[in-house]
Amino acid sequence: MAENKFVEKQLTHKTIRAFKEKELSQTQLTTLLEVARHTSTSLFMQQFSVLHITDPEKRAAIRSISSQKYVGANGDLFIFIADLYRNQQIRRQLGNDDGRLHTTDIFLQAYEDTVLAVQNVLNAAESMGLGGVILGSINDDPQKLIKVLNLPKLTYPVLGLQIGVPDQTPQLKPRLPLELMAFGNEYDTDFNLDDLKNYDEIVQTYYDLRDANRRIDSFSKQVNGNKLNKKNTKRDEQVLALKKQGLCLDF
Amino acid sequence: MAENKFVEKQLTHKTIRAFKEKELSQTQLTTLLEVARHTSTSLFMQQFSVLHITDPEKRAAIRSISSQKYVGANGDLFIFIADLYRNQQIRRQLGNDDGRLHTTDIFLQAYEDTVLAVQNVLNAAESMGLGGVILGSINDDPQKLIKVLNLPKLTYPVLGLQIGVPDQTPQLKPRLPLELMAFGNEYDTDFNLDDLKNYDEIVQTYYDLRDANRRIDSFSKQVNGNKLNKKNTKRDEQVLALKKQGLCLDF
Repeated sequence: MAENKFVEKQLTHKTIRAFKEKELSQTQLTTLLEVARHTSTSLFMQQFSVLHITDPEKRAAIRSISSQKYVGANGDLFIFIADLYRNQQIRRQLGNDDGRLHTTDIFLQAYEDTVLAVQNVLNAAESMGLGGVILGSINDDPQKLIKVLNLPKLTYPVLGLQIGVPDQTPQLKPRLPLELMAFGNEYDTDFNLDDLKNYDEIVQTYYDLRDANRRIDSFSKQVNGNKLNKKNTKRDEQVLALKKQGLCLDF
Repeated sequence: MAENKFVEKQLTHKTIRAFKEKELSQTQLTTLLEVARHTSTSLFMQQFSVLHITDPEKRAAIRSISSQKYVGANGDLFIFIADLYRNQQIRRQLGNDDGRLHTTDIFLQAYEDTVLAVQNVLNAAESMGLGGVILGSINDDPQKLIKVLNLPKLTYPVLGLQIGVPDQTPQLKPRLPLELMAFGNEYDTDFNLDDLKNYDEIVQTYYDLRDANRRIDSFSKQVNGNKLNKKNTKRDEQVLALKKQGLCLDF
């Protein structure tokens, strides 16, 4: 099925969380940032930015927010930011108002720009023999993160990305059967738990490297469990943080 | 700088909007969907789905919503959907409640899953010699789109992606200078319009293939103009559409 070496890499994509003690070369770093810069962008508004976090204190602070010991350990750490500040400055310095910059619509466009760039950079890194992990956990305490990064209003941290030379070889993590997530002209609402039976068994054969001593729960058990259960979490302060940043004010 | 052929392609990425009258082969189609399936996913919750729209009526309806004549013309059309419905079904069929599925946090995670998959598939397509265009315009009338696609609650259409054999060779569109969008440890708020002077001139040398007779406006003129000016637009009904779909109820 795979049409070329790059696609083969995509089809065997594995998240890497352990890296060798080796920073990206200046050439690798520039290449990855240039790839980010050339990513598709909504309406050509170019509404994202990237921070490359090398400061040990900031890395430690982000690790503490993420509660993941590999965050800011070995590997180069990037924070991808939805950025409406730059375009606000352009408009203001030209004597104009902020226009639609505080709407949910424009924020979502910036969010998309940002996430597209994350995947584009990850693909570039993997094609260069590097590995990486996308970090959603940076927003486990969004207000603290914004303070640590000293971000201006109209910017918002979306995802982290840590890149480096792999120091582990995880198994390929089994994904949902294609027929349960890819449809023809209409979404198939007729989902039945029985459709997951085989898949649930397959998932349990996967060993998570984060705890090599035990197999992971079946997919349906994970969905039915703590990851999605009702609970109080600082992640819900994203709503507050967005408003404080002047974003999605029409929501 | 470019480290390999794939990265070279990323650094010369051009959006393709005109395709030859040739559908994807079954092998190409399966490969692209398999790439989507293997994309990184937040918390392993796999919260997105893809529709492959071949029905001429649906394609025409999406074209009408987008107001772009190339949408649903030649090329294969995909709609990428943030999907919390599947996990809701799993929880409900196991006798559980919906947990955190109606929170903004979980919606944003699903949104990220979805956008990551879009870029991953676009990269795969480009590596296979195909071209593509990411379609934000599908949400120019979000409520109508949801009706056309007959989407269940807890799903939300995020982006379209049209893929095919390129039938045009656009110029490389010049992007913001790297130093204006990539920073070290701290975001540089000291933006000055003068920093854009050279870039603004460069952008005006780009000919947009959608109207080959005239050059495009400078970047700062675009930012300062209609794209971001205050106006009434159905795109702002995304807020309403999200709530109606049972999403971001804590916002």
